[in-house]
Amino acid sequence: DFMNALEEVHPAFGVSEEELQQVIQNGIIHFDTVVDEILRSGQLLVEQVKSSTRTPLVSVLLHGPPGAGKTALGASIAQASQFPFIKLISPDSMVGFSESQKVAAITKVFADSYKSPLSVVVVDNIERLIDWTPMGARFSNAVLQTLLVLLGKRPPKGRRLLIIATSSTRSILSDIGLSDTFDSEMRVPPIANLTALEYVLREVELFPSSDERREAIHMLKEAGFAGSDDLSSRLSIGIKKLLSMIEMARQEPDNVGQRLTGALIGLGM
Amino acid sequence: DFMNALEEVHPAFGVSEEELQQVIQNGIIHFDTVVDEILRSGQLLVEQVKSSTRTPLVSVLLHGPPGAGKTALGASIAQASQFPFIKLISPDSMVGFSESQKVAAITKVFADSYKSPLSVVVVDNIERLIDWTPMGARFSNAVLQTLLVLLGKRPPKGRRLLIIATSSTRSILSDIGLSDTFDSEMRVPPIANLTALEYVLREVELFPSSDERREAIHMLKEAGFAGSDDLSSRLSIGIKKLLSMIEMARQEPDNVGQRLTGALIGLGM
Amino acid sequence: DFMNALEEVHPAFGVSEEELQQVIQNGIIHFDTVVDEILRSGQLLVEQVKSSTRTPLVSVLLHGPPGAGKTALGASIAQASQFPFIKLISPDSMVGFSESQKVAAITKVFADSYKSPLSVVVVDNIERLIDWTPMGARFSNAVLQTLLVLLGKRPPKGRRLLIIATSSTRSILSDIGLSDTFDSEMRVPPIANLTALEYVLREVELFPSSDERREAIHMLKEAGFAGSDDLSSRLSIGIKKLLSMIEMARQEPDNVGQRLTGALIGLGM
Amino acid sequence: DFMNALEEVHPAFGVSEEELQQVIQNGIIHFDTVVDEILRSGQLLVEQVKSSTRTPLVSVLLHGPPGAGKTALGASIAQASQFPFIKLISPDSMVGFSESQKVAAITKVFADSYKSPLSVVVVDNIERLIDWTPMGARFSNAVLQTLLVLLGKRPPKGRRLLIIATSSTRSILSDIGLSDTFDSEMRVPPIANLTALEYVLREVELFPSSDERREAIHMLKEAGFAGSDDLSSRLSIGIKKLLSMIEMARQEPDNVGQRLTGALIGLGM
Amino acid sequence: DFMNALEEVHPAFGVSEEELQQVIQNGIIHFDTVVDEILRSGQLLVEQVKSSTRTPLVSVLLHGPPGAGKTALGASIAQASQFPFIKLISPDSMVGFSESQKVAAITKVFADSYKSPLSVVVVDNIERLIDWTPMGARFSNAVLQTLLVLLGKRPPKGRRLLIIATSSTRSILSDIGLSDTFDSEMRVPPIANLTALEYVLREVELFPSSDERREAIHMLKEAGFAGSDDLSSRLSIGIKKLLSMIEMARQEPDNVGQRLTGALIGLGM
Amino acid sequence: DFMNALEEVHPAFGVSEEELQQVIQNGIIHFDTVVDEILRSGQLLVEQVKSSTRTPLVSVLLHGPPGAGKTALGASIAQASQFPFIKLISPDSMVGFSESQKVAAITKVFADSYKSPLSVVVVDNIERLIDWTPMGARFSNAVLQTLLVLLGKRPPKGRRLLIIATSSTRSILSDIGLSDTFDSEMRVPPIANLTALEYVLREVELFPSSDERREAIHMLKEAGFAGSDDLSSRLSIGIKKLLSMIEMARQEPDNVGQRLTGALIGLGM
Ligand SMILES: Nc1ncnc2c1ncn2[C@@H]1O[C@H](COP(=O)(O)OP(=O)(O)OP(=O)(O)O)[C@@H](O)[C@H]1O
Ligand SMILES: Nc1ncnc2c1ncn2[C@@H]1O[C@H](COP(=O)(O)OP(=O)(O)OP(=O)(O)O)[C@@H](O)[C@H]1O
Ligand SMILES: Nc1ncnc2c1ncn2[C@@H]1O[C@H](COP(=O)(O)OP(=O)(O)OP(=O)(O)O)[C@@H](O)[C@H]1O
Ligand SMILES: Nc1ncnc2c1ncn2[C@@H]1O[C@H](COP(=O)(O)OP(=O)(O)OP(=O)(O)O)[C@@H](O)[C@H]1O
Ligand SMILES: Nc1ncnc2c1ncn2[C@@H]1O[C@H](COP(=O)(O)OP(=O)(O)OP(=O)(O)O)[C@@H](O)[C@H]1O
Ligand SMILES: Nc1ncnc2c1ncn2[C@@H]1O[C@H](COP(=O)(O)OP(=O)(O)OP(=O)(O)O)[C@@H](O)[C@H]1O
Ligand SMILES: [Mg+2]
Ligand SMILES: [Mg+2]
Ligand SMILES: [Mg+2]
Ligand SMILES: [Mg+2]
Ligand SMILES: [Mg+2]
Ligand SMILES: [Mg+2]
Repeated sequence: DFMNALEEVHPAFGVSEEELQQVIQNGIIHFDTVVDEILRSGQLLVEQVKSSTRTPLVSVLLHGPPGAGKTALGASIAQASQFPFIKLISPDSMVGFSESQKVAAITKVFADSYKSPLSVVVVDNIERLIDWTPMGARFSNAVLQTLLVLLGKRPPKGRRLLIIATSSTRSILSDIGLSDTFDSEMRVPPIANLTALEYVLREVELFPSSDERREAIHMLKEAGFAGSDDLSSRLSIGIKKLLSMIEMARQEPDNVGQRLTGALIGLGM
Repeated sequence: DFMNALEEVHPAFGVSEEELQQVIQNGIIHFDTVVDEILRSGQLLVEQVKSSTRTPLVSVLLHGPPGAGKTALGASIAQASQFPFIKLISPDSMVGFSESQKVAAITKVFADSYKSPLSVVVVDNIERLIDWTPMGARFSNAVLQTLLVLLGKRPPKGRRLLIIATSSTRSILSDIGLSDTFDSEMRVPPIANLTALEYVLREVELFPSSDERREAIHMLKEAGFAGSDDLSSRLSIGIKKLLSMIEMARQEPDNVGQRLTGALIGLGM
Repeated sequence: DFMNALEEVHPAFGVSEEELQQVIQNGIIHFDTVVDEILRSGQLLVEQVKSSTRTPLVSVLLHGPPGAGKTALGASIAQASQFPFIKLISPDSMVGFSESQKVAAITKVFADSYKSPLSVVVVDNIERLIDWTPMGARFSNAVLQTLLVLLGKRPPKGRRLLIIATSSTRSILSDIGLSDTFDSEMRVPPIANLTALEYVLREVELFPSSDERREAIHMLKEAGFAGSDDLSSRLSIGIKKLLSMIEMARQEPDNVGQRLTGALIGLGM
Repeated sequence: DFMNALEEVHPAFGVSEEELQQVIQNGIIHFDTVVDEILRSGQLLVEQVKSSTRTPLVSVLLHGPPGAGKTALGASIAQASQFPFIKLISPDSMVGFSESQKVAAITKVFADSYKSPLSVVVVDNIERLIDWTPMGARFSNAVLQTLLVLLGKRPPKGRRLLIIATSSTRSILSDIGLSDTFDSEMRVPPIANLTALEYVLREVELFPSSDERREAIHMLKEAGFAGSDDLSSRLSIGIKKLLSMIEMARQEPDNVGQRLTGALIGLGM
Repeated sequence: DFMNALEEVHPAFGVSEEELQQVIQNGIIHFDTVVDEILRSGQLLVEQVKSSTRTPLVSVLLHGPPGAGKTALGASIAQASQFPFIKLISPDSMVGFSESQKVAAITKVFADSYKSPLSVVVVDNIERLIDWTPMGARFSNAVLQTLLVLLGKRPPKGRRLLIIATSSTRSILSDIGLSDTFDSEMRVPPIANLTALEYVLREVELFPSSDERREAIHMLKEAGFAGSDDLSSRLSIGIKKLLSMIEMARQEPDNVGQRLTGALIGLGM
Repeated sequence: DFMNALEEVHPAFGVSEEELQQVIQNGIIHFDTVVDEILRSGQLLVEQVKSSTRTPLVSVLLHGPPGAGKTALGASIAQASQFPFIKLISPDSMVGFSESQKVAAITKVFADSYKSPLSVVVVDNIERLIDWTPMGARFSNAVLQTLLVLLGKRPPKGRRLLIIATSSTRSILSDIGLSDTFDSEMRVPPIANLTALEYVLREVELFPSSDERREAIHMLKEAGFAGSDDLSSRLSIGIKKLLSMIEMARQEPDNVGQRLTGALIGLGM
């Protein structure tokens, strides 16, 4: 079954440039120093894989709340490596796959990576890859076991591999014994203060003038979203959802500020 | 298996006009301002999908008690968009499908939508699509995982998609991790006061004269169904069931008022 | 699988006269006014389906203790409708069917009904159709989901359908979310007083003379089966079992009264 | 699957004389009046099936502790009926059958019985037919559902059927909803007093003389096995196990009494 | 499936001499009188099967701690019977069999035995045959049900069968309803006192002289392994493990005594 | 199914030199006397298998925390035996195998080993072989049962086998009844004191001079990692992870000491 499934998957070498582009379509906004730290740590891991002779396998987990930017950052690190083999393993391209087709597709990417001297594999959204659902704690054990082995399996002699995984449910990963297999972890945080928020608003040029932007920020401050003081701040939103809200606000040009702050307040923050 | 299943489903482009008509057969009665608000919010979402370049995917959940009119309202918004691709994913057309046939049929509609520059997909009655049953908390994880991915998956470059989902069991959706995937939500309420009820009765011309209608309303007020005062009111009925009761009452022309009020009281309201 | 299963089931149009006869073989004894009320309410539903343009689908649930006469009454209402399409969906004709064969057979009857302008479908013994067993609360979710959809699905334009379902386990139906789908419900009660019992005994001519019958009733009254007083009465027996006991008693012609009262007392009533 | 399975089972009409003989190989010893009562009640049921026109289906459950003689008594009643169709449905002839093969085999016997004007079907050892195991309360729901329907399904017009079922786990049957389907029940008791035991010993001629037999009984009385006094008696053994013990004792001709009483005492009675 | 599986198993008649030899390779050491009692009781059962006409089926369960010698003793009894058909049903020869292959293989052995006038079937290690695991209390119900029937099924007329089963988990057998099916049971005890231990050591000639042996025993006595006094004794080891320890100790000829006593003490006894 | 699966696995005799090399790629560093003790005990077991005539099967379990070096040590012992047949059963070479393929592959290795007079089979990472996951306590019972039998099954006459198994979850093995099957066990400890750590650092020549090394050790001592005093020491790291950290530190030549100690402190030790 698996063997057949394996054959159905056609060979795929090289770099899936297009897929990587798709997930960082909206670019990376450097709203916080942590964004740069993550990118730089990623670069160091890339270096280690390149130069060390004793650690042919290095793996890292990017975790954080939904929409925090995990996939975009993971893809950015991968793309920046300029390794000859870069692949994205994503639930988006496995819709409707059976368990064994998923296992085959995942195994295929790793098998291909073992043929390149230097590779990056992005294992995106692990909880979705394993079909996790909190109700009844169901998941695909076949996919999980495949990941448990592949995330820890050394590539053959002369091959080196960087694995970048992402997940929004870090605690589940540790309950199922997956988090132990990573060499390191990095947390991708949500936007949680007004300074970062203002930075984003400036970058996307939502407001025609900086006065209007500052006014909107002021409104939020008044409403209790104090950016500098962690205790009083109620702000916590993933960059992904924020960018979506910004687009909705843009729909009513006369009313941009009110719509955005309304939406943020409505979020229950 | 899935691959075979996928092929069995024939291609289907364009707009399923007939299906949409079928679910709004009895029209939309504007018994409350919330009805208009829902339709207008829907229109704004349609606009956002049309004009924004950064949010090619917008999704909304219509939730509310059984028979509140979720499907009819969702279909109305879809129809009003006049997008070139409008499709209804409904349990009604999947009776007896196996898990993989369901997954294939759902995947097919989304795959088709990705070929149109502008699309609306109505994902009707999610709890039924996933074969949900409260006893033993059973459901199809394969269908759920398919929805979890497809509701959050961006269409390819140059394509834009509005997803309108409906459900009577919002709390279940959040237990299974589905509600996080929506950009926004709207509640479709039942008829819950005598003013709204009277409005409906007038529209459907159940009573030959307005005097008789008012008399029936009066009977309900006496019986404790006070429309204006929320505390004492016991009225809460979906428009769908109300329309059905009205038809039953029509069966005995001499006795319309009594049959209707009897049925409403019998409902235990 | 389902598709194959569907084909194995041959087309079946029209009225299954024989099957209907089989379940009302022993006739309907009017031992209580409630029997007539049920039949008359059934007739009204038949009328509604015939005349209303807005409610092409009407469904009713007949529930009550085992052997109360649900199937016989449901079949009687169906037969009296004189609709061109009348079908019985019964576990008796699905012995040994797999889940998908059951789903196919049920779906087939509904699909056929959609071809007739006016139809009655009797969905008999729902708990058995879904393979319900209290131990471990097991049941066929595939059959359940099929019923959940079909019981609420409108027939196509120009077609009208009356669904009459029966069940001995009403509380289970509501636990699995099935009872919400019915437009109305009727309770079929057991024989619970001596007047009704005496009526039945007269009808079936168990005793050669009315004196002997009255004597038997007297014996039961003495034994605490007081029909008029609900508190002291211990009588509660389905018409089906009562008719069977009557036949056993008939075996010993000299001893009819004693055998019957003995059996009733032995029932622990 | 079921349909194929059904065909694999070859037609079988008539009476399975040999099988019936096999289960009553050691005859019926009338150690207690209850044995005769069971046989006579069985005969009455046979009469009812033969003569009544309104109860074409009669079913009875023989239940009691393991080895009490349920199968032998059920087979005796069946054999005595002299009906043209008598069949035994027994786990012994279904070793290694899959669920659907079991369902097919059971269904086949009933289907065959419907072709004979008068039939007896012995459904032996229900808990084993449904693959019951107390650990985890596992059983075959497919077989159970088949029995639930077949035990209550009326034979076609002009056919009459007596069903005799046996079980050692009556309480399980009622937990799974099976016991409600029987028209009547009879308890087959174990040997529980010294009079009955002595009767058996005499019948099987274990002891060369009645003196020796009486001595053995005396030994048991001394040991606290007082037959007449229920309180002090610890005797409770199925006829099947008793006959086996008797054979073991026979192995040492010089020591028959001591071996038998030793074995009975060792039983922890 | 089962039918196919059955055919894959080739016919096997006669006595599996080699297999029997394999399991009693290291002989039987008569370290305790209970060893002889077990062998003699086994012989009596063999006699009963041979001579009695009413008990064509006799079954016995040998149970005891892991490695106590159950298989070796069971095989010895079987071999000593000199019956024309002697077979061992052992998990060792069913590695990797599917459920239905196991069922087929077991059924085959019994079916073959029914062709011989006199047979012994050794059903070895029941908990392993049914794939028992304590975690989650999992096991193969198909194999269990097969055993439940076959252990109690009478061979056909003129055939006689002795069944010898072994198990280390007697309490599980009774939880799953298997222990009731045996006619008798015998407990195979571990070595639990120094006298028995010394007997074994002498038989296997571990020590060059009896002085050295006695010294080793003395060391154990000092360490609290007092053989005669049950309270202080901590000795309890299966003959199988003891023989293995003896071999390990033999590896260091200069140090035999210390290694053996060290190992025994290390066992936590 | 299993039979087919078995054939798909091609014959493999001899020694899998390459695989063994792969797992001890980084050599064995003798950082503690326990390392030598494990290797020497392994050697003794090899001797026992070679010389004893009564124990053709010897099995040992190497257990300890993740990354402690279990696989490398097991492979070293196997390699040192110089037996003609040495094989590694590892999850790494069974990615994506179905249950029956795993069972077949494992069975194959053992079947092959039975053809060699002297064999070592390394059963690596048992919890992964059985697809163990703590959530829901899921695992493959088919693989477990295969191991339960094969770990205790004697090779045929004239063949001798040493089984070396490894596991990080010893307590799970005992919960599922696997730990009883081993003749002996050895614990592979993590690095838990500064002396051992310093030994490793010297061996891998991380620091250019011994002064710098000592300084780093000093930093750790200051930070509370006191190697000699168990109470205050917080050091506990598998050799595998330590070697990986050392490589990361090597990336920044100017900063080796700080990066390493930072990483160790960051480990939460
Ligand atoms: N600093 C940033 N980090 C990450 N993404 C950013 C950043 N700035 C802008 N973005 C944009 O925000 C979006 C982040 O979405 P992304 O899918 O990466 O989030 P995610 O955490 O993976 O979400 P999910 O939890 O749904 O998987 C992308 O469109 C990306 O281009
Ligand atoms: N204001 C309204 N909103 C929605 N439906 C209306 C309204 N007025 C009249 N209707 C009619 O009421 C019916 C609503 O039924 P609909 O199937 O949409 O409800 P639903 O909430 O989807 O029910 P269910 O919970 O069973 O899925 C339709 O026939 C529709 O034509
Ligand atoms: N008033 C009555 N109502 C219903 N059935 C009656 C009545 N009088 C006589 N009968 C006869 O009683 C029997 C009722 O059996 P029926 O199978 O309809 O009961 P049921 O409630 O469906 O039983 P079950 O719970 O087993 O499905 C039929 O044979 C019918 O002819
Ligand atoms: N009075 C009796 N009643 C029943 N069987 C008797 C009687 N006297 C002797 N026998 C013999 O005793 C044996 C009873 O065994 P039988 O298999 O019928 O018991 P059972 O209750 O069906 O056992 P199980 O619980 O194992 O199914 C038969 O061999 C039968 O010939
Ligand atoms: N008195 C004895 N009884 C049984 N076996 C003995 C005896 N003396 C020596 N032996 C030897 O001891 C070993 C007992 O192992 P055996 O496999 O029979 O034990 P077991 O209880 O079946 O083990 P397991 O619980 O693993 O199935 C055999 O090699 C047998 O030759
Ligand atoms: N003393 C030692 N013992 C074992 N391995 C050592 C030792 N010194 C160095 N090593 C190296 O350390 C690594 C140990 O990794 P290994 O895979 O054997 O650990 P493990 O305990 O099997 O890990 P896991 O729990 O992930 O299976 C190997 O690369 C080995 O070469
Ligand atoms: Mg992501
Ligand atoms: Mg709806
Ligand atoms: Mg009925
Ligand atoms: Mg029986
Ligand atoms: Mg054994
Ligand atoms: Mg390892």
